Amino acid sequence: MTISMYGMSVPVFTRMLTNLLAIMDKAEAYAADRKFDTLVLSEARLAPDMIPFRGQIMIATDHVKGCVSRLAGKEVPSWPDTEKTFDELRARIQKALDLLSTVQASDLDGSEDRQITLKLGGNEVTMDGETYLTQRALPNFYFHVTTAYSILRNNGIPIGKRDYIG
Amino acid sequence: MTISMYGMSVPVFTRMLTNLLAIMDKAEAYAADRKFDTLVLSEARLAPDMIPFRGQIMIATDHVKGCVSRLAGKEVPSWPDTEKTFDELRARIQKALDLLSTVQASDLDGSEDRQITLKLGGNEVTMDGETYLTQRALPNFYFHVTTAYSILRNNGIPIGKRDYIG
Repeated sequence: MTISMYGMSVPVFTRMLTNLLAIMDKAEAYAADRKFDTLVLSEARLAPDMIPFRGQIMIATDHVKGCVSRLAGKEVPSWPDTEKTFDELRARIQKALDLLSTVQASDLDGSEDRQITLKLGGNEVTMDGETYLTQRALPNFYFHVTTAYSILRNNGIPIGKRDYIG
Repeated sequence: MTISMYGMSVPVFTRMLTNLLAIMDKAEAYAADRKFDTLVLSEARLAPDMIPFRGQIMIATDHVKGCVSRLAGKEVPSWPDTEKTFDELRARIQKALDLLSTVQASDLDGSEDRQITLKLGGNEVTMDGETYLTQRALPNFYFHVTTAYSILRNNGIPIGKRDYIG
């Protein structure tokens, strides 16, 4: 057995996004119990100049679609960032899961050597697929999923790390 | 070129821990400027029943030493969890970086198939090295590094995602 670009990306994204859906269900149940609107959580943030929960979900899923598309040598699909409600945010996560389910291991074969060009801070930066996955896509993805979790945790939602890890 | 267990772990941990040291330097400079003790940050947390900054650093580094030791088939070193000050926490991060610098790529060759046994919630669970790295070590490591960042961000430290990503 050897490790593959597919194994390091698609099952990882799938697992963490599935856990995130379950975390959002717990948040919604808590909101119903306490009788507040989940839009409060969608707009919650950890610092005034940090993006809110809904933005964390959008960017986490952006990294998913960006990563698997670029590694497969495909156009990155454009998804308008219009989601606000929990239902809309869950639909966006599901859209990312649906995209992941279409990726075959063979689509990413050899993608460790594929040259990936990104716009970072206005500059074009080119790196190989392995560097892109390990130094850009995964740390960014985990950053936004963890921050989404932390925003809910900071707002009293009864979740624990086991919900995050799955 | 193929991707390796080494490439997916040691450079990733090294990069993120190095970024974390720089983030702590910024936090210390901010504390000096505002004339408060960094021990306030060591004890800061995002929820009353969540572990504080110092615990996030301890657990992040635990996952580093646990991961590279287990994958290499070595005993996991025991580090007492006594760090409280920023200097002590930085020393712990440096200890993890020093350990990482001793790991050779060949030490982790074939570790994707190595059987790893963990105690999870009182039960022994065995998984292969690839599953351990992708589903346990990395998501846990990123969780604690991101949460450490978020605690500082939540306390007004002037850092941004670029500091996290490096």
